Amino acid sequence: MALTMVGTRLEQSVTPTALRSYLAEFISTFLFVFASVGSTISSRKLMPNAVPDPSSLVAIAIANAFALSSTVYMAANISGGHVNPAVTFGMAIGGHISVPTAMIYWVAQLLASTVACLLLNIVATIVGQVIPTHAIAEEMTGFGAAVVEGVITFALVYAFYAAGDARRGQVGVIGPLVIGLIVGANTLAAAPFTGGSMNPACSFGLALVSGNFKNQGVYWAGPLIGAAIAGLVYDNVMFPSQSSDASRFMVDGGVGQ
Amino acid sequence: MALTMVGTRLEQSVTPTALRSYLAEFISTFLFVFASVGSTISSRKLMPNAVPDPSSLVAIAIANAFALSSTVYMAANISGGHVNPAVTFGMAIGGHISVPTAMIYWVAQLLASTVACLLLNIVATIVGQVIPTHAIAEEMTGFGAAVVEGVITFALVYAFYAAGDARRGQVGVIGPLVIGLIVGANTLAAAPFTGGSMNPACSFGLALVSGNFKNQGVYWAGPLIGAAIAGLVYDNVMFPSQSSDASRFMVDGGVGQ
Amino acid sequence: MALTMVGTRLEQSVTPTALRSYLAEFISTFLFVFASVGSTISSRKLMPNAVPDPSSLVAIAIANAFALSSTVYMAANISGGHVNPAVTFGMAIGGHISVPTAMIYWVAQLLASTVACLLLNIVATIVGQVIPTHAIAEEMTGFGAAVVEGVITFALVYAFYAAGDARRGQVGVIGPLVIGLIVGANTLAAAPFTGGSMNPACSFGLALVSGNFKNQGVYWAGPLIGAAIAGLVYDNVMFPSQSSDASRFMVDGGVGQ
Amino acid sequence: MALTMVGTRLEQSVTPTALRSYLAEFISTFLFVFASVGSTISSRKLMPNAVPDPSSLVAIAIANAFALSSTVYMAANISGGHVNPAVTFGMAIGGHISVPTAMIYWVAQLLASTVACLLLNIVATIVGQVIPTHAIAEEMTGFGAAVVEGVITFALVYAFYAAGDARRGQVGVIGPLVIGLIVGANTLAAAPFTGGSMNPACSFGLALVSGNFKNQGVYWAGPLIGAAIAGLVYDNVMFPSQSSDASRFMVDGGVGQ
Repeated sequence: MALTMVGTRLEQSVTPTALRSYLAEFISTFLFVFASVGSTISSRKLMPNAVPDPSSLVAIAIANAFALSSTVYMAANISGGHVNPAVTFGMAIGGHISVPTAMIYWVAQLLASTVACLLLNIVATIVGQVIPTHAIAEEMTGFGAAVVEGVITFALVYAFYAAGDARRGQVGVIGPLVIGLIVGANTLAAAPFTGGSMNPACSFGLALVSGNFKNQGVYWAGPLIGAAIAGLVYDNVMFPSQSSDASRFMVDGGVGQ
Repeated sequence: MALTMVGTRLEQSVTPTALRSYLAEFISTFLFVFASVGSTISSRKLMPNAVPDPSSLVAIAIANAFALSSTVYMAANISGGHVNPAVTFGMAIGGHISVPTAMIYWVAQLLASTVACLLLNIVATIVGQVIPTHAIAEEMTGFGAAVVEGVITFALVYAFYAAGDARRGQVGVIGPLVIGLIVGANTLAAAPFTGGSMNPACSFGLALVSGNFKNQGVYWAGPLIGAAIAGLVYDNVMFPSQSSDASRFMVDGGVGQ
Repeated sequence: MALTMVGTRLEQSVTPTALRSYLAEFISTFLFVFASVGSTISSRKLMPNAVPDPSSLVAIAIANAFALSSTVYMAANISGGHVNPAVTFGMAIGGHISVPTAMIYWVAQLLASTVACLLLNIVATIVGQVIPTHAIAEEMTGFGAAVVEGVITFALVYAFYAAGDARRGQVGVIGPLVIGLIVGANTLAAAPFTGGSMNPACSFGLALVSGNFKNQGVYWAGPLIGAAIAGLVYDNVMFPSQSSDASRFMVDGGVGQ
Repeated sequence: MALTMVGTRLEQSVTPTALRSYLAEFISTFLFVFASVGSTISSRKLMPNAVPDPSSLVAIAIANAFALSSTVYMAANISGGHVNPAVTFGMAIGGHISVPTAMIYWVAQLLASTVACLLLNIVATIVGQVIPTHAIAEEMTGFGAAVVEGVITFALVYAFYAAGDARRGQVGVIGPLVIGLIVGANTLAAAPFTGGSMNPACSFGLALVSGNFKNQGVYWAGPLIGAAIAGLVYDNVMFPSQSSDASRFMVDGGVGQ
């Protein structure tokens, strides 16, 4: 029985529908990282001394919010619109996506972010800029930064679960917008302290392309733990009824309906 | 009969559904205060002389709008998505939430704000910042500030009632967005004069953590009076028909549907 | 027959439903003008030399967009959510609101704007600011400014008609948001040239309270002509079928289902 | 058979419904270009040295996002809401709009942009400004710029296809918003490098009115190739089922139910 299920799951990983969902994650993550990191390079180019000020913070936060809302929307009815390994992890913790599928989502997301960062690195180099990395404020420890990243990723994944909650009925339609908005708000709150990543794929792509893996662990541990807690809390406390997955999410792990 | 009702109400306060709604208020209020106050600390850190300018005003207003829209949405179908003691008061005035439930909502909201402010105080201290408090422009009196806070909280609670108006049908789906937008607009209008709080829980948490309760009364009197007027006007003038609560709000006091 | 209709229309002007719609217009217009003008005073207070820069332009545009989306939404299912005499004029041109009702809407809107401006004038005076008025860039003529105001008000009223178009079905739900967005975009485009008013009630309230009626004609002629053209084009070209009003707008002059 | 179809298609190009859709494209494109280019002139007027900074980048990006969301919405149920020759090209590649109709859409879009730019040129000249053109950062080659424009236009057209995907059901209602958001995010990412056009009609109108066609090819080749790839990918991989057009788009080439 269990073996059959494993077999079924593996088979499910290579169906046309599954392959389509991996590509949807790849495209949405690529487009999100391109806009998010691109806006950082852009803002820096426009600042005479390259010292960030509140207006560059606004630029980056709006880019994050707008890009995430739209890329989650683009992929929502195909892959569930995770666009972020922490979201995938949070959905896997709740059992809304199988572990093999989650692993392939991670590969797609990390690959997409790397390709986007490689492309942006070329652009940055041409115009005399250096590609940024997520960095922690001098005064902060890695532990403190992981807590901050954990809290803001908790917010993202909690919003993601809330958006996929079938009890909402029609209000579910603004789910992808809401997911982007909370990320925009938390970029404004946390960017000067931890970079406000919430997305290990984005942090990984930047680190790989710039060759600077300093504090990379912070951008995985914080978000993954925050995502796991969000998934467990929403699933067990906010939506404890024994409903089947099918009745809760339009797509596996999806935002939709 | 009345005693039975009281008994029923008390019992209703500890059902799983009720406990879930308190936690939903706690989580949403925590996340809202974290993003709202965090963005203020963030903007200050990026300003050389810590003198607010229009771009820091934009940063804070967008954080408020985006964070409120999303946290109201997250809790809407569980607790009604108040995220603010003034909103809870305005709903209680209209009889859409029982007094015992409203009191527990207040406790959850004040506790959530305090925890968020404690966490942000640690972050602020580490990076050499001081946690802000809501403050009145030097030239203004407490009465003037209370009037301004009252007007802008009236707008918020009126929007909340409008969003829960069942006559809207489908248009109700953008209710949580609209609630955040009016708060963002009024932050832009009022922040330099009164701080633009509209939320006694947020003002209380900041005062408690910073140990500065100056003008705290203003941030309770203004919003609560504004909220009460909004509730009375909407309920008695805008929606005067004798419909049962059940047909008006999906959830007790809810934004939804 | 015609007399009976006139009689019926006059009677309709004092039904509880009608009185409610006048109050809804009053409240929404008051709240819109408060946020819109308040954000201008706010931005000026934060700028050392009171010379507007792009960040204050962003602050005012976002306040306009967010405040209009939310106030239109608040009143949409009661009065149609005009919040602007030019919109009321544009709906009257298309026959979607009777002339007597339109005139009472105008009174409610002008009164609301005046009350909001009086309140803001007190706040502005206290903090040492002067209430602003809509003004034309030095180099521009009144005619040029009227053309610009006409074009951007055309956009607003065209959006309003589009949002109320029953052929949209579900997409109508985001109508109030869209109406705010086009006004935000056009504030960014036109504010340094004409003030970007698009709203004769707002311009009138500011002029009355500041005692400066210079170019007031521009802020009536431009928007009213733009609104009329938008109404005529949408009604006769975009939606030429002989459908009854009832099937097109949920409420008389209303924004979408 | 084929001849009959050609005949039918030509006849379809002059029906009242078809003529209405051309006018809808003209009006929406005119209003989009007016707000987008107007905000650039506006920001420049407010900057003392006319050197763009992050706050002017935010102003232009918000104007683009808000204006595109609203103008796509206005035309969505009439012409499909393309507002951009690259989008029309991307829909034609997928066979969702006939070639003759697409060509008339292009004429309407180019004409609308030119009229908007002529009007803005008058305003700019009066206030002592020069109408801008889309320009490439000094250090970049035409090829590099075309790649960047191609990537960001891919994002726009992919979002457009996603918004029109009938499998979404209710979530389709926020489609026009999402289309504007991705363009806003990518304006923030790319404006300092290529101008962030994504719209050959806008680039063409600016070039024609300013008499400066430098790099015009970049603003056609990049977007058109990006649009074509987006159409082919979405149509063949993301939505490969053999559904008729009628079941996928409410309107020919339209944005969602």
